[in-house]
Amino acid sequence: MGSIFGKYFRVSTFGESHGLAVGVVVDGAPAGVALTVERIQAELDQRRPGASPYTSSRQEADQVEALSGLAEGKTLGTPIALLVRNVDARSKDYSELADIFRPGHADYTYFKKYGVRPQPGGGRASGRETVGRVAAGAVAKAMLNTLGVTIQAYTVQIGEITAVHIDPDFAANDPLRWAGPDAAEAMAELVSRTRDEGDSIGGVLELAVKGAPPGLGDPVFGKLDSVLGGAMLSIGGIKGVEIGAGFAAARRKGSQNNDQMDETGFLSNNSGGMLGGISTGQDIILRLAVKPTPSIAKEQTTRDIEGGVRKIKITGRHDPCLCPRIAPVAEAMAAMVLADAWLAQRAAKGEGL
Amino acid sequence: MGSIFGKYFRVSTFGESHGLAVGVVVDGAPAGVALTVERIQAELDQRRPGASPYTSSRQEADQVEALSGLAEGKTLGTPIALLVRNVDARSKDYSELADIFRPGHADYTYFKKYGVRPQPGGGRASGRETVGRVAAGAVAKAMLNTLGVTIQAYTVQIGEITAVHIDPDFAANDPLRWAGPDAAEAMAELVSRTRDEGDSIGGVLELAVKGAPPGLGDPVFGKLDSVLGGAMLSIGGIKGVEIGAGFAAARRKGSQNNDQMDETGFLSNNSGGMLGGISTGQDIILRLAVKPTPSIAKEQTTRDIEGGVRKIKITGRHDPCLCPRIAPVAEAMAAMVLADAWLAQRAAKGEGL
Amino acid sequence: MGSIFGKYFRVSTFGESHGLAVGVVVDGAPAGVALTVERIQAELDQRRPGASPYTSSRQEADQVEALSGLAEGKTLGTPIALLVRNVDARSKDYSELADIFRPGHADYTYFKKYGVRPQPGGGRASGRETVGRVAAGAVAKAMLNTLGVTIQAYTVQIGEITAVHIDPDFAANDPLRWAGPDAAEAMAELVSRTRDEGDSIGGVLELAVKGAPPGLGDPVFGKLDSVLGGAMLSIGGIKGVEIGAGFAAARRKGSQNNDQMDETGFLSNNSGGMLGGISTGQDIILRLAVKPTPSIAKEQTTRDIEGGVRKIKITGRHDPCLCPRIAPVAEAMAAMVLADAWLAQRAAKGEGL
Amino acid sequence: MGSIFGKYFRVSTFGESHGLAVGVVVDGAPAGVALTVERIQAELDQRRPGASPYTSSRQEADQVEALSGLAEGKTLGTPIALLVRNVDARSKDYSELADIFRPGHADYTYFKKYGVRPQPGGGRASGRETVGRVAAGAVAKAMLNTLGVTIQAYTVQIGEITAVHIDPDFAANDPLRWAGPDAAEAMAELVSRTRDEGDSIGGVLELAVKGAPPGLGDPVFGKLDSVLGGAMLSIGGIKGVEIGAGFAAARRKGSQNNDQMDETGFLSNNSGGMLGGISTGQDIILRLAVKPTPSIAKEQTTRDIEGGVRKIKITGRHDPCLCPRIAPVAEAMAAMVLADAWLAQRAAKGEGL
Repeated sequence: MGSIFGKYFRVSTFGESHGLAVGVVVDGAPAGVALTVERIQAELDQRRPGASPYTSSRQEADQVEALSGLAEGKTLGTPIALLVRNVDARSKDYSELADIFRPGHADYTYFKKYGVRPQPGGGRASGRETVGRVAAGAVAKAMLNTLGVTIQAYTVQIGEITAVHIDPDFAANDPLRWAGPDAAEAMAELVSRTRDEGDSIGGVLELAVKGAPPGLGDPVFGKLDSVLGGAMLSIGGIKGVEIGAGFAAARRKGSQNNDQMDETGFLSNNSGGMLGGISTGQDIILRLAVKPTPSIAKEQTTRDIEGGVRKIKITGRHDPCLCPRIAPVAEAMAAMVLADAWLAQRAAKGEGL
Repeated sequence: MGSIFGKYFRVSTFGESHGLAVGVVVDGAPAGVALTVERIQAELDQRRPGASPYTSSRQEADQVEALSGLAEGKTLGTPIALLVRNVDARSKDYSELADIFRPGHADYTYFKKYGVRPQPGGGRASGRETVGRVAAGAVAKAMLNTLGVTIQAYTVQIGEITAVHIDPDFAANDPLRWAGPDAAEAMAELVSRTRDEGDSIGGVLELAVKGAPPGLGDPVFGKLDSVLGGAMLSIGGIKGVEIGAGFAAARRKGSQNNDQMDETGFLSNNSGGMLGGISTGQDIILRLAVKPTPSIAKEQTTRDIEGGVRKIKITGRHDPCLCPRIAPVAEAMAAMVLADAWLAQRAAKGEGL
Repeated sequence: MGSIFGKYFRVSTFGESHGLAVGVVVDGAPAGVALTVERIQAELDQRRPGASPYTSSRQEADQVEALSGLAEGKTLGTPIALLVRNVDARSKDYSELADIFRPGHADYTYFKKYGVRPQPGGGRASGRETVGRVAAGAVAKAMLNTLGVTIQAYTVQIGEITAVHIDPDFAANDPLRWAGPDAAEAMAELVSRTRDEGDSIGGVLELAVKGAPPGLGDPVFGKLDSVLGGAMLSIGGIKGVEIGAGFAAARRKGSQNNDQMDETGFLSNNSGGMLGGISTGQDIILRLAVKPTPSIAKEQTTRDIEGGVRKIKITGRHDPCLCPRIAPVAEAMAAMVLADAWLAQRAAKGEGL
Repeated sequence: MGSIFGKYFRVSTFGESHGLAVGVVVDGAPAGVALTVERIQAELDQRRPGASPYTSSRQEADQVEALSGLAEGKTLGTPIALLVRNVDARSKDYSELADIFRPGHADYTYFKKYGVRPQPGGGRASGRETVGRVAAGAVAKAMLNTLGVTIQAYTVQIGEITAVHIDPDFAANDPLRWAGPDAAEAMAELVSRTRDEGDSIGGVLELAVKGAPPGLGDPVFGKLDSVLGGAMLSIGGIKGVEIGAGFAAARRKGSQNNDQMDETGFLSNNSGGMLGGISTGQDIILRLAVKPTPSIAKEQTTRDIEGGVRKIKITGRHDPCLCPRIAPVAEAMAAMVLADAWLAQRAAKGEGL
């Protein structure tokens, strides 16, 4: 359980970190959407490790193969199966850790849940699982592009450093997806120093959806806030979600927080583009709390599967900050949610009634 | 769509704010769980309007009737249908607002989605929809009680005032569910003053689950963080969720944020009781950003369904702060999620393999 | 589990035979469909016991109350909750049977599954459960009527007597829904004689859907044959389904069974209106094997819950033939399936791609 | 849509007949079930074309590769991805048929549904889609084997010839899975003659499940009859399903059809092993009507996508009778349904309540 997502646009991911391959099957994409393997590859290249000085140096070409569902640059309406072989799975890096619960990782809870030793590299708990998400997200983005919807995630805070003036274009070319040109140097220095100390650092991503039509999302349990927020919290390392004003709204009066309207439309966007769980047509804005990478070289105390207390230093290849690795995954999840909501709305509002 | 929740413990709510009734059908509760109508009523009494000086003065007895699924103080294993008749639906309070989009409400987005005039009182977008959730939550809580799991939500911040020393027992007897004995007077004064100004104010709820066993939740899309967080964001008025350290983790180093272990167990709970999306057996801790009540007496600018710009003062009965009204709903949603995760885990780990 | 049906048009039924009420919540019907309570009542009157000399003499007014989702003769797009109170539940008729497994009933399997004594009257296993289905079917039929789709089920065989010339109009006025004017007298005589012997008899229903557009249904697991056939087999007492030529196709050559086409369209309908699981636009034709009513006055041998062998005569009020009682339920299930398939097709083929 | 099956044991198939590959992802199999790739291969070898004089001479090695979810001869509890590359897809065999609606095939309905020309070889409508089902069925069978459940499908009728004495062991070694030693010669002669005439012939499969425990299946919509029957009708070419006595029950009295009990248990099995939709613990027995292969060399009249009337002879490689090709698929679907029902029952009856 747990590897299938969505109601209409249904995504089924598979693959362990140190198995043969990872991938995804997408069921429910309509026929006739323009989509090439190259475009899916381009999305995967965004999340690929080894792409910058700050991200993990694991080398994965992450070449995607489209096994079904695409022909002549278009979707067929049939399931789209996308496969990426694992090529650089150095299990021996992990062998000495095999019976130790790494702090901040899923090792302990997997052992409690399944009653077996965790797989090398974390198995399904590894960030490598997100390859399937990003590939599926490329399909969703292709659908959304026909509607003029774009999605971008960028880093707005790392540790105590906050981007004051946010410039998503700046983020597009930054190895940490940093959107704050002002504090760029201080931020880079902070990340480098943290890495050199054998430590890691948390951050905040902002995710902006532009061009979404009004009317997406359902009342009650199917609120777009709920589905988007839940999707974000399904990404390993995300421990908080704000929609629009988020926790700032908790400090405000209603007269400050309500988005009033005049003849030009809404005068503010404290709601983050969703009211009553349904899109307003404004930008949809989320902020995501990203915890510091749990794998660090500093010595930590933990336990092994026999219950013994152990000291551990995790010396493999690891990202000092997860923000740039998570950003494309967050975009992919948002794309899936919106593609799903769009199909739902077509069912509810189709011609003929 | 949108009114059905859960996979194993499945909840289907119904009813408009100003219709005949609201209620719920619960499918999937096992047979033989001790549960009486009185217990469900006691939960509903927690969310009932008119219960304190701070909450809306709409008078609703909210008497629940169990139509099916219960007999002799136990569940039958069949669907449990629970019905609450609406008795104090003063539609005329809303008649003058019928064609105006109230700021901060779902009126505009419902009109965009469904293409029809919103129902009086908000229809399904009204907080009255949560009656069904709380009733279903009572069933889930009955299941969880057999496991020794308890759930409590309490207010830890209103406006700029924060509870320093948190005492959930204090909250149990406070009309605002306020958990901070220290700042209780200042908080009460703030809420009264805000109400007298015709305004409202936001706040933060904390939700604590005690006694949950390790192993609940699934990897990938079914992470317990995701399902719990998504459930919270399906409650109208919640615009942010933190799990464990939440946004504070964004400012930390890995060496500060990881929960290390020794022979006594975990040495901290920054993860909020979930690692890799699976419960650790520690307390599960969430914090929820509650926006200020959108209905306020202060004058606001907005539009009507013909596109005209209008001034509006909403003078009906409204809560100055939503926290105490949302707290039992948050508890109910958490109970449903945990009951569902528990049934899933029984399927995955049953005898015989 | 088991009381929720459908993907887009979702139906959640509840209620035990001898409980307070039975009913249904329908989630997913679009807004703006013309539908009145009177129309739902008219459908329920079709399945009501006590309506003819052949059906059970249990007197149930089966007055339906619409609790939500309808206003001013139209659907609101919100969940439609429909409630029918039980008024003639004579539990004492069943009390002497409470610990005996009635042959042909669910008593034995429920006891094995749930480990508790069956509810009086069969609880959820009673045919009374179908009230909710018929009420939900009325909603689905209202949707389909806007498309020009009609659905009719009628009896074409009882025992060894088969309707040679099938006339559905004749069935509309016959207490056994008998569609064969030729053999009507022989058939009535057979049913009367069987009833007088304290026995019951099986039969075959045919179900015809007219006006369904081509393109409904999905490949692979979502074939319309599969969903329709599975829906029929969810009705208690149905033990076989044929689509189009059905078992007759097993005796044929391909050259006899294929439906060839010329400029006028298909030259035959051996496929029953579905090819590759997708509707062709022809009439959709199913035949349903209905077993004889298991409750009979003749003496039978069975066991009780302590394992003792017992003799039993079931002397309550029972239908000598289930066909006329099942016919409206089969229509309702077909309507739900087609409404669901239609919404799915709108999602897949909506404007904008 | 339509390529995902099951609730707890969830199967997601993919692949077109003439694309690169076909396969499946199985989510929900518990950890620790003994299962090797060899065992999955053995199941696939059962359905492989080219295995007998009667089946299609398309040569497909159908070598399966397990991409994830298995390690050291056991399931990991993670998604199991199984891949089979297409190697003998002779698209040119089909090129002349590309714009003609083959009688008895999905060509016409796919064109009406998707609005695009059908894929060569039928795309997802091809029987090749069943590779994924059989692979997933191997996983389900491995689970069921731990319970002692076995499943076998065999041919009991071809054309007018019926197996009188049914011997499933005989079927295991027969190229047509024929279970009637008595009529074996006549049957083989009939099939050979039909093939030589350029025609095809229908038949009936019987499917027997032995060792299923009582209590599987749910009341109302989730009846085991419904889920099993619906699963069978999702297999291309199956146009009828009987459970137990099936259509024979329509001709019987209740006193003949009810399964009475004495101290030894049930005295008959007219119910086919299911009462009230729940397994009795007896053998589960279904019979399936298999239509004659629609692809025949005899001349037929049909239309093309421009609406022109065309004569067609389909001269490719085709099975004269589908029964032996469908039998392993029927077994696989039954295995998936029972694995799913078993997991559901574990959720409902787990320890702790």
